[in-house]
Amino acid sequence: MYQISVKRIEQDLYDLSRFGYNENDQGVYRQGFSEADMQARHWLMEKMQQEGMTARLDGAANVIGRYENDTNRDKPAVMIGSHLDSVPAGGIFDGTLGVMAGLECVRVIRENAIDLSHPIEVVATSEEEGRFGGMLGSQAISGGITPDWLETAYDPSGETLKDAMARWDMDIHDVLHAYRHPDELKAFLELHIEQGPVLEARQIPIGVVDCISGVFKWVIHLRGKASHAGTAPMDMRSDAFMGAADFAHEIPRIIEEDGTDRSRLTIGRIELKPGFPHTIPGEAEFTIVGRDTCAEVMTNLANSCRRVLSAIARRHGLMFEYEEMSWLDPKSCDPDMVELLKSKAEARGYKYLQMPSGAGHDTQFMTDITKAGLIFVPSVGGISHAPDEMTHWVDIEKGANLLLDAVLELAA
Amino acid sequence: MYQISVKRIEQDLYDLSRFGYNENDQGVYRQGFSEADMQARHWLMEKMQQEGMTARLDGAANVIGRYENDTNRDKPAVMIGSHLDSVPAGGIFDGTLGVMAGLECVRVIRENAIDLSHPIEVVATSEEEGRFGGMLGSQAISGGITPDWLETAYDPSGETLKDAMARWDMDIHDVLHAYRHPDELKAFLELHIEQGPVLEARQIPIGVVDCISGVFKWVIHLRGKASHAGTAPMDMRSDAFMGAADFAHEIPRIIEEDGTDRSRLTIGRIELKPGFPHTIPGEAEFTIVGRDTCAEVMTNLANSCRRVLSAIARRHGLMFEYEEMSWLDPKSCDPDMVELLKSKAEARGYKYLQMPSGAGHDTQFMTDITKAGLIFVPSVGGISHAPDEMTHWVDIEKGANLLLDAVLELAA
Repeated sequence: MYQISVKRIEQDLYDLSRFGYNENDQGVYRQGFSEADMQARHWLMEKMQQEGMTARLDGAANVIGRYENDTNRDKPAVMIGSHLDSVPAGGIFDGTLGVMAGLECVRVIRENAIDLSHPIEVVATSEEEGRFGGMLGSQAISGGITPDWLETAYDPSGETLKDAMARWDMDIHDVLHAYRHPDELKAFLELHIEQGPVLEARQIPIGVVDCISGVFKWVIHLRGKASHAGTAPMDMRSDAFMGAADFAHEIPRIIEEDGTDRSRLTIGRIELKPGFPHTIPGEAEFTIVGRDTCAEVMTNLANSCRRVLSAIARRHGLMFEYEEMSWLDPKSCDPDMVELLKSKAEARGYKYLQMPSGAGHDTQFMTDITKAGLIFVPSVGGISHAPDEMTHWVDIEKGANLLLDAVLELAA
Repeated sequence: MYQISVKRIEQDLYDLSRFGYNENDQGVYRQGFSEADMQARHWLMEKMQQEGMTARLDGAANVIGRYENDTNRDKPAVMIGSHLDSVPAGGIFDGTLGVMAGLECVRVIRENAIDLSHPIEVVATSEEEGRFGGMLGSQAISGGITPDWLETAYDPSGETLKDAMARWDMDIHDVLHAYRHPDELKAFLELHIEQGPVLEARQIPIGVVDCISGVFKWVIHLRGKASHAGTAPMDMRSDAFMGAADFAHEIPRIIEEDGTDRSRLTIGRIELKPGFPHTIPGEAEFTIVGRDTCAEVMTNLANSCRRVLSAIARRHGLMFEYEEMSWLDPKSCDPDMVELLKSKAEARGYKYLQMPSGAGHDTQFMTDITKAGLIFVPSVGGISHAPDEMTHWVDIEKGANLLLDAVLELAA
């Protein structure tokens, strides 16, 4: 069996972490189309060329390094990779691990002069973290971007995608040229940190992802009546916070009745008006984010939330409104890819867990155009999107070896 | 029976509302020691003098108008009044009604040349709304102010009481000279709007207050772990908001078991960290304000809150801390005053309700030095501390007539 060098991946990740590193909070600030992001992309292209690959920036700013030879260049490619951008104050593993492990696979293939029937493409997708509200790079590759979205996308600061790309002499219309026809690809594989606590808690080094949760986001308004917290008797109140709290209290029951162990319902943000200690909240605005790996379950959860909120609003004398801000269906990884990864993990003697991904990943869009698979390695403490995001190098070694084995079989 | 003129009270309230009136939101901005507040005090002193009273600003900026004659000037005075300051964007009735109704009583007494055995003092207390965290005027009169508090009191903007008073050439040390010895006063009576929904809902024009709720305020911290809302399974979370919500959900039960129908527990403010829709809240900071008219019940409620929060924190894997920001014991109105007001209301044929006050009032401090009583008139919609605060003039007429009758008996 060929072995990847985790030392080289380690060095690459540290080198890469310099792009956007902030000394004050030790976080990485490499948001899509930032200067750090674009510098990192050019650094990566150079590295790819040093490893005997051709490298290009496609119309969506995805870096695509291609490793091919005269005999396989007309065959569909095996694409491996992940994203290069980060959230603000992110860690050094999220996304980057999949890119640098992909490059390491090519290094091993080249060093060992392994003969492959299919080209390998290492991709570093652009803007996966959703600065502009999507996963630009993988959506572009998989054909999920429309011209009108490109024209109207903007980030939380109000900057448009158009302007953000124009700064790098890129034209939003070229994003559509990043599309890859299914004929061009044989498969897609991504290695990513779990960003959750499951693998670590179960002491399992490898997660073989079988599906990626869909997600919906609601903004909910409960409107009652702001009153003096002393003068309004408990039974004469329309307390918007008590409505929100009663709803939150019902979440475990909603999941028990209408969800699965893969269901998630989270209230992450709440704002009360007027928000004074001595005033009964007249208004509560809060978000609920729901997830499951089955679209039907998501629908049931959403319906149940609506019913429960309606009933609670009636009970508390509140007005209830909600806006569905987004709805993304769950996506399944290709069953053949799941089986391939499981058998390769077994062959290495790696314990693995077949599991869903609660977070979104580039893989979910790649499933639209090719057989796609996703490997997880454990996140220490389940932490990600933070400077103390961490995965042990021994686990990274296993994940990268598994990626290598799967790639070698797919490209053989 | 003598009759007050509600027309004159109406005119006075409109005149007074000009001090601090804001055209944009129709709110009154007459916070303690603001320019509007001090102008209003001088306007009031002039009016008092026109009505044959002596008027002065005491060391705490209370306006004290005294109506006496040669035969009664050495007798203890019957003090009537309320406060002149407002909250930001307040209404035109809160506090001011009691002051102007007090002045109207003197007008009626003077017009009718009613012979009284006791002087009448009309007081317009200063800074009742708690800009500096207390009820400065009535606390000063009743001896509830200490020199160290005066030195350290500051408002939410950070301005010290010292500086706020210095702007009007007032010295904080003079606040202590506002103290009135119990021998100087025969009784205190306050007419105030209810600021709650009870009288209106029961269609009763008069509330005879028998006690004023005590109040405690806690700031509660629940600390769990911020995690990705997709990757952390429901049973592996330490969701601080779910802890807060479960606590809120228990409030009705806490009151049922350890409270009374005069108990109030209110969560008016909550802040989640990080407060992102897709992140499980790692931290929740919220306030709870508890009230009852019995100190023992307040203690039981507080103990119950602590126990329930501890249990919920354990269940959710959260750290629980709280800080008691304030604790004010309940105060009883003088039983003789309650009986006097009830009998006078009956004599007028006014329906009345003996009730607690959930909000704090100057009366609660005046109980420390004299027999004190408090009359409520209905608040339309229970609204106060807002531009649309409103009490029907017919109800004000009844409240002011009751005040007059009680004053006449007390001063006879």
